[in-house]
Amino acid sequence: MPVLHQMQESGNCYKVRLVARQLGIPVTLRNYGLHDGTTRTPAFLAKNPNGRVPLLELEDGRTLPESDAILWYLAEGSALVPADRWGRAEALQWMFFEQYSHEPYVAVARFWLAFAPKERLDEKRHLVPEWHARGNAALGVMETHLRRHDWFAGGAYSIADIALYGYTHCAADGGFDLGAYPAVGAWLRRVAAQPGHVPLEATW
Amino acid sequence: MPVLHQMQESGNCYKVRLVARQLGIPVTLRNYGLHDGTTRTPAFLAKNPNGRVPLLELEDGRTLPESDAILWYLAEGSALVPADRWGRAEALQWMFFEQYSHEPYVAVARFWLAFAPKERLDEKRHLVPEWHARGNAALGVMETHLRRHDWFAGGAYSIADIALYGYTHCAADGGFDLGAYPAVGAWLRRVAAQPGHVPLEATW
Repeated sequence: MPVLHQMQESGNCYKVRLVARQLGIPVTLRNYGLHDGTTRTPAFLAKNPNGRVPLLELEDGRTLPESDAILWYLAEGSALVPADRWGRAEALQWMFFEQYSHEPYVAVARFWLAFAPKERLDEKRHLVPEWHARGNAALGVMETHLRRHDWFAGGAYSIADIALYGYTHCAADGGFDLGAYPAVGAWLRRVAAQPGHVPLEATW
Repeated sequence: MPVLHQMQESGNCYKVRLVARQLGIPVTLRNYGLHDGTTRTPAFLAKNPNGRVPLLELEDGRTLPESDAILWYLAEGSALVPADRWGRAEALQWMFFEQYSHEPYVAVARFWLAFAPKERLDEKRHLVPEWHARGNAALGVMETHLRRHDWFAGGAYSIADIALYGYTHCAADGGFDLGAYPAVGAWLRRVAAQPGHVPLEATW
């Protein structure tokens, strides 16, 4: 069975758990702490030189980092990846948007405001306004799209929705007001109503 | 013919030009300036609410932003995308690495140090050490991989190499010393020796 090296609190790891659960792919969870430095040990860096989770490890020892690459790997050929070329391009568009324009602000604000020790947050507090400005810009781009579409790619629920759900659904932890984005709110409810949906807290 | 909305100096736009040239896909270039604000006009935001180039516009009006999603769209089914599932996952792994761990430091340092007006750089100069630390970390991850592999994904030259070449080959513009990364240097020469390679300066 593949091993998912992960942190339970991480939205990037949650995305992988959610896709695996919805596709019925069993994985073994190996848990790391947010603050214990265990993803920077020589043993872990031998598996992922970039020192990050999630990391998927296959039974034959091959390893795959990057949450959205893992989503693609697990879901390729399933109903969670659009069947046509343009739909696949749309899915990747939103997954790259998520990692470049959304996660570095929405997820980072959540980490520092909800999970970091207070004394470490104090070193970062001057960055909070920029995180909020850029994170709100990303939520605004999502709102614009969702006013005219139910889903992000291919006209159906896909890994692009899961990629964006990972940190959007818990954005309030980072001080974002989702009430300002009604189309995003309605989409969050549609995602949570999908068959086999599990919350971030669910283990296996 | 598709239109590529682009900035000539942008490594993200260069990636798209390079893939299109190597695959023999003709595109019309529509140029925007680095400093003229033309990607934030209402007309442009109607095409891409995220206000960025590159943006590919098809003849029927459909639009696709995000450089690495455009690469996938143009190259899917060609020799530049690995033919097997694991190879495709590896390609996406490195493309997400590029957008999350490499571009925000290597490309951003280049923009501010090589292209920004001096008075605007002064506001950002305190960030240069962090850009260099994180950019060098990314170059170190690439060096570790390239000591044991000729290419990033699927055992052959692919869009993952092109995605990483875009800003690595000009990293010296941002104050990075590529002499510290000999395996990266050898890989840059392999990429530049591929049939149909064109430099960043080439238009169409």
